[in-house]
Amino acid sequence: MIKGFAMLRIGAVGWIEKDAITPCGPLDAICRPLIVAACTSDLHTCYEGAIGERHNMFLGHEAIGEVIEVGNLVKDFKVGDKVVVSSATPDWNAIESQRGFSSHSNGRLAGWKLANTKDGVFAERFHVNDADGNLAHIPKGVALTEAIMLCDMVATGMHCAESAEITPGDTVAVIGLGPVGLMACAAANLMGASEIFVVDRIDFRADIAKKHYGATHYINFSEAPFEKQIMEITNNRGVDRVLVAGGGLSTIGEACECLVNGGIVSNVNYYGYGEHLTIPRIGWDVGMGHKTIKGGMMTGGRYRMEKYARLLATKKLDVNPIVTHKLEGFDKIEEALAIMKDKPKNLIKPIVSIQW
Amino acid sequence: MIKGFAMLRIGAVGWIEKDAITPCGPLDAICRPLIVAACTSDLHTCYEGAIGERHNMFLGHEAIGEVIEVGNLVKDFKVGDKVVVSSATPDWNAIESQRGFSSHSNGRLAGWKLANTKDGVFAERFHVNDADGNLAHIPKGVALTEAIMLCDMVATGMHCAESAEITPGDTVAVIGLGPVGLMACAAANLMGASEIFVVDRIDFRADIAKKHYGATHYINFSEAPFEKQIMEITNNRGVDRVLVAGGGLSTIGEACECLVNGGIVSNVNYYGYGEHLTIPRIGWDVGMGHKTIKGGMMTGGRYRMEKYARLLATKKLDVNPIVTHKLEGFDKIEEALAIMKDKPKNLIKPIVSIQW
Amino acid sequence: MIKGFAMLRIGAVGWIEKDAITPCGPLDAICRPLIVAACTSDLHTCYEGAIGERHNMFLGHEAIGEVIEVGNLVKDFKVGDKVVVSSATPDWNAIESQRGFSSHSNGRLAGWKLANTKDGVFAERFHVNDADGNLAHIPKGVALTEAIMLCDMVATGMHCAESAEITPGDTVAVIGLGPVGLMACAAANLMGASEIFVVDRIDFRADIAKKHYGATHYINFSEAPFEKQIMEITNNRGVDRVLVAGGGLSTIGEACECLVNGGIVSNVNYYGYGEHLTIPRIGWDVGMGHKTIKGGMMTGGRYRMEKYARLLATKKLDVNPIVTHKLEGFDKIEEALAIMKDKPKNLIKPIVSIQW
Amino acid sequence: MIKGFAMLRIGAVGWIEKDAITPCGPLDAICRPLIVAACTSDLHTCYEGAIGERHNMFLGHEAIGEVIEVGNLVKDFKVGDKVVVSSATPDWNAIESQRGFSSHSNGRLAGWKLANTKDGVFAERFHVNDADGNLAHIPKGVALTEAIMLCDMVATGMHCAESAEITPGDTVAVIGLGPVGLMACAAANLMGASEIFVVDRIDFRADIAKKHYGATHYINFSEAPFEKQIMEITNNRGVDRVLVAGGGLSTIGEACECLVNGGIVSNVNYYGYGEHLTIPRIGWDVGMGHKTIKGGMMTGGRYRMEKYARLLATKKLDVNPIVTHKLEGFDKIEEALAIMKDKPKNLIKPIVSIQW
Repeated sequence: MIKGFAMLRIGAVGWIEKDAITPCGPLDAICRPLIVAACTSDLHTCYEGAIGERHNMFLGHEAIGEVIEVGNLVKDFKVGDKVVVSSATPDWNAIESQRGFSSHSNGRLAGWKLANTKDGVFAERFHVNDADGNLAHIPKGVALTEAIMLCDMVATGMHCAESAEITPGDTVAVIGLGPVGLMACAAANLMGASEIFVVDRIDFRADIAKKHYGATHYINFSEAPFEKQIMEITNNRGVDRVLVAGGGLSTIGEACECLVNGGIVSNVNYYGYGEHLTIPRIGWDVGMGHKTIKGGMMTGGRYRMEKYARLLATKKLDVNPIVTHKLEGFDKIEEALAIMKDKPKNLIKPIVSIQW
Repeated sequence: MIKGFAMLRIGAVGWIEKDAITPCGPLDAICRPLIVAACTSDLHTCYEGAIGERHNMFLGHEAIGEVIEVGNLVKDFKVGDKVVVSSATPDWNAIESQRGFSSHSNGRLAGWKLANTKDGVFAERFHVNDADGNLAHIPKGVALTEAIMLCDMVATGMHCAESAEITPGDTVAVIGLGPVGLMACAAANLMGASEIFVVDRIDFRADIAKKHYGATHYINFSEAPFEKQIMEITNNRGVDRVLVAGGGLSTIGEACECLVNGGIVSNVNYYGYGEHLTIPRIGWDVGMGHKTIKGGMMTGGRYRMEKYARLLATKKLDVNPIVTHKLEGFDKIEEALAIMKDKPKNLIKPIVSIQW
Repeated sequence: MIKGFAMLRIGAVGWIEKDAITPCGPLDAICRPLIVAACTSDLHTCYEGAIGERHNMFLGHEAIGEVIEVGNLVKDFKVGDKVVVSSATPDWNAIESQRGFSSHSNGRLAGWKLANTKDGVFAERFHVNDADGNLAHIPKGVALTEAIMLCDMVATGMHCAESAEITPGDTVAVIGLGPVGLMACAAANLMGASEIFVVDRIDFRADIAKKHYGATHYINFSEAPFEKQIMEITNNRGVDRVLVAGGGLSTIGEACECLVNGGIVSNVNYYGYGEHLTIPRIGWDVGMGHKTIKGGMMTGGRYRMEKYARLLATKKLDVNPIVTHKLEGFDKIEEALAIMKDKPKNLIKPIVSIQW
Repeated sequence: MIKGFAMLRIGAVGWIEKDAITPCGPLDAICRPLIVAACTSDLHTCYEGAIGERHNMFLGHEAIGEVIEVGNLVKDFKVGDKVVVSSATPDWNAIESQRGFSSHSNGRLAGWKLANTKDGVFAERFHVNDADGNLAHIPKGVALTEAIMLCDMVATGMHCAESAEITPGDTVAVIGLGPVGLMACAAANLMGASEIFVVDRIDFRADIAKKHYGATHYINFSEAPFEKQIMEITNNRGVDRVLVAGGGLSTIGEACECLVNGGIVSNVNYYGYGEHLTIPRIGWDVGMGHKTIKGGMMTGGRYRMEKYARLLATKKLDVNPIVTHKLEGFDKIEEALAIMKDKPKNLIKPIVSIQW
C-alpha cells in the first residue's frame, strides 16, 4: 500500500492509501520523494477544480526524488540516484515535441502528467515516465533544497522570460511576485534586462526582487493601475517586454497599454475562471501595433533542468531567497499545502524535506 | 494650385484645390500619380473617422508615381523615373526603425504618413519623404498596373504571412478574402503552406484564391462558424497558422479555437470600433497553450517593394487576378472610391490609370 | 535467415544472409521494404569508407516499408501499415533532441542509424527504433513511389533551404543538382525565392530545375567559376542565400564570394576527404561581413515526414521528375546501386519496387 | 584650420592641420571631442594598411563629443549636448539597413565611416552623419569616462554575444581578452551564460574576466591548445557557444572542435592578412554537424548606444575595469595610440580626456 496526500474530490483533500500507482515501464522510473514543494497549481486543482474532477489522486508535481526502480531501457539513471523531477514530463517522441512544443505532447497541456493525469509526488513513491528524458542529475555544490526550485519555479520563470525574447538592455515589467514571478524577474535579469518594474502590492516580495533579482522599480498596483504608473515613469515610452505571472482576465490587455510597439507580453499565468480575456482595441493599436501576445506552460524535461542547474552551480542564480518555509517530515506535506492556501504575507514558497 | 480628391471632414469627400503641399526637402521627392488605387483604409478614414478628424486632406496612399522633383541629397532616383511609392514611408533613422519596427518610426503607426498625417496621392502631385528609402524601381517586365499592387496589398499580405512564420508544409487558414486576404493567401502559398483554408462568404473570391493562390479548402462562414468547420475538416487538429485579414473583435479569439498548440495568429485587420477584442479563456487554453497572437501594419520601404517586385518579375506571383476594375483618367478617382464603398460582388480592387 | 544486399567491407558489396537483425523493442517496429532507393551516401559508405569500416552490414536508408511487427508500447502504427521510414531515426528523448538537434541524439550524427550503426533497409526485413517517432503515415493520393522521396531527398533539400532562412523574394543559388540539390531548389522555390541560380554542368539536370522547381538561371560551372558568373549577372550584388548540395572543400568559401552581406550559406554536402575547408579571408570580408555559414544533416522523424507529405498530397511539390530510374524486384537493389556508381547522364535517382 | 592626429600614409602618423572636414549637412552634426579612446583598429589602419592607403586622415572612431553645430533637420540634438558617438554611423535608409545589416549600408562595411572613409575623431572637431540616428544621449549617473566604452567596445562585445544567440544556462568560451573580448565575456554573462571559459595567456586579463564579468574558467592557451583543454574540462562535451575576439586564421576552426553539435561560433575578430581561414573537415563533422559560423562588425547607431547605456545606468554592466589608462589633454592622443602599439601587460584600454 502506498500512502500519500490526495485530492479526494473537488474541495476536499486528505491522506489516503492506495494499492498501486502507474507501473514502471521499460523507459520509466519509480522514485520516492526527498524534498517536495507545494504549488498554487495544487490549490487550483483541488479547490477550484481547474482541471476538472479527480478522485483520490495524489497531489504534488515538484520533487527531488531518489530513484528506487528503473525500467530496463533506462540508460542514464540508476537506483539510488538523487534527481530533479521535471514537473512536466513530456512524451518526447510525440509530433508536438518534434515541432518544439513538448508541453502539448499527445494532447493539449498533456506534457503535464504528475497530479494531473496520474498520481503526483505527495506519496511514498511516484512514477516518472521516460526517466532518461525527464529526470535530471544534480551538479556538485547544489543543495537539494535549491534543486527543488528547478522543477517548476525556475523552469516556468525562465520560460516566461525566454518566450519574451528579452535582449540586453531591454526594459521589462513583471506582473505578480509569487515564486514564479520572482523567478521570471530573475530570468529577465539574467537575460540582460536593464530597468525591471515589478508589480505587486506586498512590499516584502518587491524587496526580494530588488535585493536579489535585479528589479529597479517597485510598482504598487494598489495605488494606481500599474500600466499608468509605468507610462508615467517611462515618459510614455512604456517597456519593451511584460512578463505576466499573476492577475486576471484584463491583465494582458493592460500590459499592452504600457508596451512599446514591437514589444512582447509573455504570460505564464493560469486563468482559472471567466469567459474571455480582454484586449483593449485602442491599447492594442487597432490591430496595427506589433504588440505580440504569447502564453504557455513551462517547457519541461531533462535538458532544461540540467541547463538551469548550471546557473545554480555557478552561483549566477540564487533560489534560496524564495524558499521561505522549510518543513521536515512526510506528514508536513499537509501543512505546506495549508500554508499555500492561507498565504501569509511572508510566504513565497514552502518546501518539505523527507527522511526515509 | 494643386487639385485632388479629398476628405473634407468626417463623412464628406470632394474635389478641392490647394495652394501647397509639403515642400520637397533635401531627401524627398515630389511625384505625380500614374496609377492609383483606392483602399478600404481610405473609407475607414473618411467615413468612419478611424484616424480622427481631417480637413481637406487629399486621400490615397497607393500609387505608381513619376518623379517630378528630387531633393539635392537623393542619390538613386531622378526626375522622370517611374516608381513604386511605398504606402508606408518610415523615418528610417528613428529608434523604432533601428529596432526593427519602422511602422512606428517616431510614433505609434507614424510610419504611415500619406493620407494620414499629410496629403495623399489622389492629387496632381504628392510628396514622398526620404525618396531613397521609400521609393522603389520597377524591374523590367513588370507592368505599372501590376506594380501598383506592391505599395500596400502585396506588402500587407506578405507581412501577414511572414509574421505568421509559416514553414513549408504548414496548414494555414486565411480569414477574409478582400485584396489583402488574397495576397496573404498568395504569400502563405509562396512560403510553402500545404493546405490553405480560405474563409469568406463570397464564392467569387474563394474561386480566385483556389485558382491562383494555392487555397485548397473554401470555408463559407455564413454556413457555420469557421473555427468549427476547420476543426471538423482537420479531425480536431486545427491549423498551424491563421492569417486574419477581416472580421470583428471576436475573430482573433475564434481563430485561437482552431489553432494547434504552438500555432500563431497573425493579424493585419484594422479594428475600427468597439472596446475590446476578446480571447476565449478555454480556447486560449487558460493561458498555457502557446497560441501566439501578433498584429501589425505592413512594413514599408524600398527594400521590401523591390524584393517583392522580383516575385512579379519572375512570374512567381501574379497580381492581375485581384485588379478587377481598371478605370482611366484622373477624374475617375472619385468613382474608384465609390466602387470601394458600394462593394459589388465582383470587386476585389479598383485602380485608376492617369495620363498627363 | 534474413537476406540482403550488404557492404562486406570497405570496397566490397554483395548479397548475404544473416541470422538476426536488431530485435524489436517495446517502442520499435520491424518492416519489410516495399520500395527502396539508393543514395550517394551508400556509395560513400561502402566505396570510400566514409564512416569507417563495416562488415556485412546491410546497406540502404531510404524505404517505404510495410510494418510486420510492432513493440507493445507503439500506439500509432500496426502490422500491415504501409509507411515512410525516416532515414534518420533519432532518439527523441535525448538531450540533443530536447535542444533541437535530434540528428545528434546521443552522439555526433548518431540520429542516423540505418546502414550506419545498424543494418539498413536493403534486406528482407529491417528494424526501426521508436516507431511512433520515426515512421510516418502516407496521406491519400500520394503514391508509394513518390513517398519514398520523403525519407531523405525531400527532407534533406528542405533542411538545406530552411536552414538558409529563405524569405519571400530572396535570390538563391543552388550548388549541385543531384536529387538533393534539386529538392533544395524546389524547397527554395516553395519558400518564396524569386531568382534561383542553379549551378551544375549537366544540362539535363538544370532543365529539370527550371521546368519543375523554379530555377530561373542556369550557371554551368565548367565555363567559369560559378561565383564570378553570379556576380556578373547580379551586377556585383550577389545572392541572398547559397544552398550547397555538391562541390568540394573550397565550395563554401567560393559561395561566400557571391553572397550579400547578411546572407547565409547552408550546406548539406558531405565532405568525404581532405583536411580543411577553406574560407577566403577577403571574400569573407575579413571576418566583418555577416556571412553566416551553416551545415548539417537533415532533421528526421515523423513530424517532418508527415508535414512534407502534405505538400505531395496537395500537389504543391512534385517529386516524380527526380525519379528517373524505376526498377522492380528485390534482386534489382544491386543494379540500383551500380547505376548510382556509374552515374549515367540521365540519372537523378533510382528506386526499386518490391513485391512480397 | 583644424588640428588633429592623423595617419599620414601607411606606416606613418603625426599631427597635422587641415582646412576643412566634411561639411555639416542638414541631418548631420559637428562635434568636438571630450573623451576619445584608441582602438586596435587604428593600429591596423595605419601600421598594417588593413583598409588600404590613406593620406593625412585624422584617426580615431571612439569619442564622447560635444555638439557644436547641427543641421537644420536634426530634431533630437542641439549645440552643447554631450553625446556618445557611435563608432559605426550607418546610412539608415539604405537597403542593407532596411534588411537588418546597417553595417553594410551602401557598401561592404560602409557603415563604418570615421577614420575609414572620412576623417576621424582625433581632431579638434569631427563630422557625424545623421545625428538623430547616430548620436546618443547619456543617461544620468553615467560618467563620460564610462560612456566612451559604449561607442565600440560594449557594442562590439554585445554584437558578438547576441549573434551567438546565447540562452540562459549555456556554456560559453571567449577567445582573446582584449577590451572587446572582455566586453564579449560581460555580454555573455549578461545574457545568462553559466560556465564561461576565457582563453588568453595574460593572467591579469583573466583576473578581470573572473572578478567582474562572470568568467568561471581560465584557459591559458600557451599551455596547450585551448580546444583540447576545453574538451578535457567538459568531458568531451564542448561548449554551446564560442565568442572569437582574437586569434588567427585557424581559430574559428579550432573553436569548432570544442563546440557542441548545434552550437554557434561568433566572430568579431578582424583578420588582417593571409589567404584563407581554415575549418577542419572532421572537426566540422564533414559538413553535417550543425556548427554555425557567424562573423560581423558591430551594429552601430543611436538605438543600441542608448539601450546599452541603460545597462550602465542601472549598474548591471561596469565598464570601469577595462579603462586601465586615463590620460588628459588633446596632445596625449599620440601617447594613447603609442601605448596601444606597445601593449604593456597591464593594458586593456587607454582613454584621453580633453578640456576646451
